[in-house]
Amino acid sequence: MSLQNHPDTIVAVSTPQGTGGIAVIRISGPDALQLTRQYVDNVSDEPNKAVFGVFCDGTQMLDEVVATTFRAPHSYTGEDVVEISCHGSRYIQQALLELLIKGGGRYAAPGEFTQRAFLNGKLDLSQAEAVADLIESQSESAHRLAINQLRGGFSRKLKEIRDKFVELTSLMELELDFSDEDVEFADRTALRNIVDYLDSEVGMLVESFRKGNAIKNGVPVAIIGRPNVGKSTLLNVLLNEDRAIVSDKAGTTRDTVEDTANIGGIMFRFIDTAGIRDSADEVETAGIARSYKAAQMAQVVLYLIDAAQDEEATAAELSALRSHVSLEGKTFILVRNKVDLNHAPVASGDVPMLDISAKQGIHIEQLSRMLVDSVGLLPDADTTLLTNVRHYEAMTHIIEALSHVREGLENHVPADLVVVDIRDALYHLGQITGQVTSDEVLGSIFGRFCIGK
Amino acid sequence: MSLQNHPDTIVAVSTPQGTGGIAVIRISGPDALQLTRQYVDNVSDEPNKAVFGVFCDGTQMLDEVVATTFRAPHSYTGEDVVEISCHGSRYIQQALLELLIKGGGRYAAPGEFTQRAFLNGKLDLSQAEAVADLIESQSESAHRLAINQLRGGFSRKLKEIRDKFVELTSLMELELDFSDEDVEFADRTALRNIVDYLDSEVGMLVESFRKGNAIKNGVPVAIIGRPNVGKSTLLNVLLNEDRAIVSDKAGTTRDTVEDTANIGGIMFRFIDTAGIRDSADEVETAGIARSYKAAQMAQVVLYLIDAAQDEEATAAELSALRSHVSLEGKTFILVRNKVDLNHAPVASGDVPMLDISAKQGIHIEQLSRMLVDSVGLLPDADTTLLTNVRHYEAMTHIIEALSHVREGLENHVPADLVVVDIRDALYHLGQITGQVTSDEVLGSIFGRFCIGK
Repeated sequence: MSLQNHPDTIVAVSTPQGTGGIAVIRISGPDALQLTRQYVDNVSDEPNKAVFGVFCDGTQMLDEVVATTFRAPHSYTGEDVVEISCHGSRYIQQALLELLIKGGGRYAAPGEFTQRAFLNGKLDLSQAEAVADLIESQSESAHRLAINQLRGGFSRKLKEIRDKFVELTSLMELELDFSDEDVEFADRTALRNIVDYLDSEVGMLVESFRKGNAIKNGVPVAIIGRPNVGKSTLLNVLLNEDRAIVSDKAGTTRDTVEDTANIGGIMFRFIDTAGIRDSADEVETAGIARSYKAAQMAQVVLYLIDAAQDEEATAAELSALRSHVSLEGKTFILVRNKVDLNHAPVASGDVPMLDISAKQGIHIEQLSRMLVDSVGLLPDADTTLLTNVRHYEAMTHIIEALSHVREGLENHVPADLVVVDIRDALYHLGQITGQVTSDEVLGSIFGRFCIGK
Repeated sequence: MSLQNHPDTIVAVSTPQGTGGIAVIRISGPDALQLTRQYVDNVSDEPNKAVFGVFCDGTQMLDEVVATTFRAPHSYTGEDVVEISCHGSRYIQQALLELLIKGGGRYAAPGEFTQRAFLNGKLDLSQAEAVADLIESQSESAHRLAINQLRGGFSRKLKEIRDKFVELTSLMELELDFSDEDVEFADRTALRNIVDYLDSEVGMLVESFRKGNAIKNGVPVAIIGRPNVGKSTLLNVLLNEDRAIVSDKAGTTRDTVEDTANIGGIMFRFIDTAGIRDSADEVETAGIARSYKAAQMAQVVLYLIDAAQDEEATAAELSALRSHVSLEGKTFILVRNKVDLNHAPVASGDVPMLDISAKQGIHIEQLSRMLVDSVGLLPDADTTLLTNVRHYEAMTHIIEALSHVREGLENHVPADLVVVDIRDALYHLGQITGQVTSDEVLGSIFGRFCIGK
């Protein structure tokens, strides 16, 4: 499954869709140079060489371009690659692409360049997945995790784990060779130490998924509370805070995904339960039920109350909330809004509480900080967190296999049966790195890439 | 005004905004290499050399990139240039850009790379303008005109004209040297021949502006007629025809500009007068008045009638139209819609007429062909048409100056006075190529470029 023949040459625009100063068309495959030379005759043989040329279909001059040659295996895909930098009009991009197809190229499928890089051994599968994560990363922390994974941080961790499993297997197989003699050769303490080590390492990775996933996809935050306590105002303030802090000139995240804010290098995904209106009690009840559901899905719950309301009412609301929503594992913050109108102090009770005024912008910075703190320490360049559901599932299988191994060792199960469980764990490890993978899995992984990567 | 010192180094993302496989950051200026090396330490000194490297801010690894070096004067701008090809996430593009600014770069103004190319003599002003036209070109014909202008087709034509003016001047100045002797040295016939030649060349360019401008900005087509004759249906059919003919996979023009269709390599800009409703006669009258106005602005008028209506009614409508709208210089097509419901033949009168059914798609192809024919012969690679209002205005000034020159020659005006008019013409020619240009003019020209070009 690792090295394959790819007799065809693929072509795609690799830069973002739309109009710009320049666009880059990428051509990869054994015929990349020959195909390009049909149109840009001075493309260089020399690796990593950029030439200025004219893209011409024989009769018609289509554009002035720069064509850069990369030679196998020292290219992104491991094949011969030409990158054509053309003027970024949609018309030109499309016209050049069509001519390259006419000349014998094929439209690349999404992620096909990276898939070829994987198949040619330039990246393992988890690194290839990191390429997609990197392109989608919208916050500093998500970006760091993806870069670490791309640079092989996760792959090294997997290799350590794999090596330990292999050590375990060889110890067990030594015993297996003498199984007829019904003797336990291997030092069971040494075996258990390895299993303990693996349990702890894999366990930490599984544990890290919640955080890794939140960093990658955004930390879900529910802003809930009764009508008219200022949920929408708070949401707007938090989204504005975003721009103030991040100042993303290229266009804010908000343009594409509503209610996402980048605070302190972390993306938060606000679940807006605002807009629930009460005209009759029945409707209000339905609204509150929807808010509870949102709270259940979230990782952080901001429960908003009006600072003017008395403690009794608050206690009743919180008790109602607790009877519907399990707050275990969540960060819960009771937020008293409109303190600019009402300064009455109140007992903080057993939950973290913050007085704010969404309208006047009072203590919004503190609230932002509490949101950031809820995520815990930010990953640095060397942190490995699980960010990928596929990896998480494989790791859960490994934990399960490990528990069978431990059971086997404790119950003096014959070595050949224990080895089956170890092999199962190795199989799931291999699925993460791509040493064992089906075409179907590859298809679903690379299918979520953008075209041109 | 031609060569200037640019001690600063400018930086911008040159690829389209948004997320994609890769993005390109362009760095140009005397310190381009040094600036980039603060982050990508292995950037090559060698011209046209691409290196794979790591973009690192000292502590943090930000991306794996390819950095290509171009050395002055053999680069787009004529300065040292580095192009960094990074992963196309918005986060990465923004982060790299910010670090390059922190390291001493400056955000490039719109069109500033091309402006530097102009100031360093890599392009004349009309070629620089063609770069913007090329990027904006949305049809084959607009693209051809821009490419021809970029490749210097227009510049060569201007040089021919300029040479003739210079010849005229030297002949006149010869006379000037002997002006005290009150003698007409120059051969007046030769002079008149040159003026005739110039008049014809410049005149053809001025004439070509209507077509060139229509090709560049879209041919304005008004679809007018009384309510319920099927204007909206026809418009939709023509817009759909567009997709069928062009099949622009990257996203259709319609996404950005409503009611624009690319037919036969030409962009048509449909002025939708549909939606005018009649409830009372007064309202209808107002609606028709608006339609007349649209017809007046258009280059092609499609006048839609119901095929069921009698000739008398049609004649009345056409006479009303003619009394409000001058059809001179316009293409006028009388379109009888709904022929699927009514096959009654009718005298065609003095206007081109076409029977269609917008609903059933009958004769829509013929209508499309008539639209394409209305533009006349499409430009080939060598055609020079005026496409730019600035050039058109300069050319009109030249025509005016030429008429003064001719008058002067005919009335035996002293040579030194005639030369003033020739110089005026040369001044306006120089404005087109940029040999004579104010900072203000440059600012307005490059200001309409996209950033990164």
